[in-house]
Amino acid sequence: VSTVDRTAGILIIGNEILSGKVIDTNSPFLTRELRRLGVTVRCILTIPDELDDIAAAVAEFHRAYDFVFTSGGVGPTHDGVTMEGVARGLRRRVIRHPAIEGRIREVYKDKINDARLKLSEVPEGTELIVDGRLGFPTIKCENVYILPGIPEILEQKFHAIRERFMASPYFLRVVYTTEGEGAIAEHLNATLAAFPELLLGSYPKIGDPEYAVKLTLESKDEAYVEGALRHLLALLPRDGVVRTE
Amino acid sequence: VSTVDRTAGILIIGNEILSGKVIDTNSPFLTRELRRLGVTVRCILTIPDELDDIAAAVAEFHRAYDFVFTSGGVGPTHDGVTMEGVARGLRRRVIRHPAIEGRIREVYKDKINDARLKLSEVPEGTELIVDGRLGFPTIKCENVYILPGIPEILEQKFHAIRERFMASPYFLRVVYTTEGEGAIAEHLNATLAAFPELLLGSYPKIGDPEYAVKLTLESKDEAYVEGALRHLLALLPRDGVVRTE
Repeated sequence: VSTVDRTAGILIIGNEILSGKVIDTNSPFLTRELRRLGVTVRCILTIPDELDDIAAAVAEFHRAYDFVFTSGGVGPTHDGVTMEGVARGLRRRVIRHPAIEGRIREVYKDKINDARLKLSEVPEGTELIVDGRLGFPTIKCENVYILPGIPEILEQKFHAIRERFMASPYFLRVVYTTEGEGAIAEHLNATLAAFPELLLGSYPKIGDPEYAVKLTLESKDEAYVEGALRHLLALLPRDGVVRTE
Repeated sequence: VSTVDRTAGILIIGNEILSGKVIDTNSPFLTRELRRLGVTVRCILTIPDELDDIAAAVAEFHRAYDFVFTSGGVGPTHDGVTMEGVARGLRRRVIRHPAIEGRIREVYKDKINDARLKLSEVPEGTELIVDGRLGFPTIKCENVYILPGIPEILEQKFHAIRERFMASPYFLRVVYTTEGEGAIAEHLNATLAAFPELLLGSYPKIGDPEYAVKLTLESKDEAYVEGALRHLLALLPRDGVVRTE
């Protein structure tokens, strides 16, 4: 079968997360949504609101993945350094985008100031993704989507652009077993030997009366994952399998 | 004042997190605990259960931070590649640790197999941190603490060793303001100009009737953060400050 693979890296920019004040819900949200779209998230990196860290991470992610998502550091205050960091990582200048600047001047009128105008600064060559339902365009530069840190807004913005990330879906089967990992490891290895492209996860659960290990089998090829499942079930002791999903 | 600074990097090894099946609670736990101890977490990185990724990240974190914590990838199954990844990142061999091997053989007796013996594999030169309350020692190699992915066990293990990470505490003051970020950015900049070492965070909250922005002021020098707080409060419009903590 011919499948479309797409990879992504998620960059969380946030001192508030590294200092334990806020729990990051943006990377779990993006990860779950991207997986549903068939996109493979390869890396999630949380770094401080610091220019050098952001630039280095963006330069690396830009080359390594099809899509890069940044979250945070886009406000008008001193710690809003993401735009400059992305620009530097992509070897571009920061400019004031005329369309955003015009809109901000319109909104703030005589209350305009440098901090508010800072919201119009973007990497040169940025594409604005305008959506009538949202107050502010989503900013994209090359393969980098620059999203805000506030979860409600990040989620709205992602939902408005999600269709463009569509790839071939993953097919998932799950097996719950009462046998521990040490008892079934050889069967997992044998299944992987027969189905080397299988994505096989083994997750022990402590203190669950129903099962000891949850096994996940995945592939973008549905027949392949079904074949692997049959292979594994034939190896596992029958009375050790609680159920499959 | 003389303060003790310590930095940490957290490495989450987990396909289950990158594929959106499980939400990582280990990095929020470690981050919060380390902050309480006065340790500065500089980076959280989530990568797949893959040898090259783990080795590269460990090599980098080992050099960059005082303490490195890994979570996950330590089971007896095919995806338990953390020990080998850490060993490779620290340019060491993997050996079977005699004390762990003896214990495992004792527990499993004639049910011993390769998968179970895999649990005795550690980087050469590993230190075992034994705690009578826990069934299995915590594994430390150089400045890398290798923790399991199961949250209950990771938390138990961290609590048993937390004292060794003690650094000077952070002092935190918080200001809640009804003014938006665009209106107060200049006062934040002025405060940072007068107190350049201040850790100053600005967090807008959407739809909260009480406040628009939460400001956090931090330092390991209590007098410094109190001075910065007075400086900032003198600049902010008095009726815009809801409360301070």
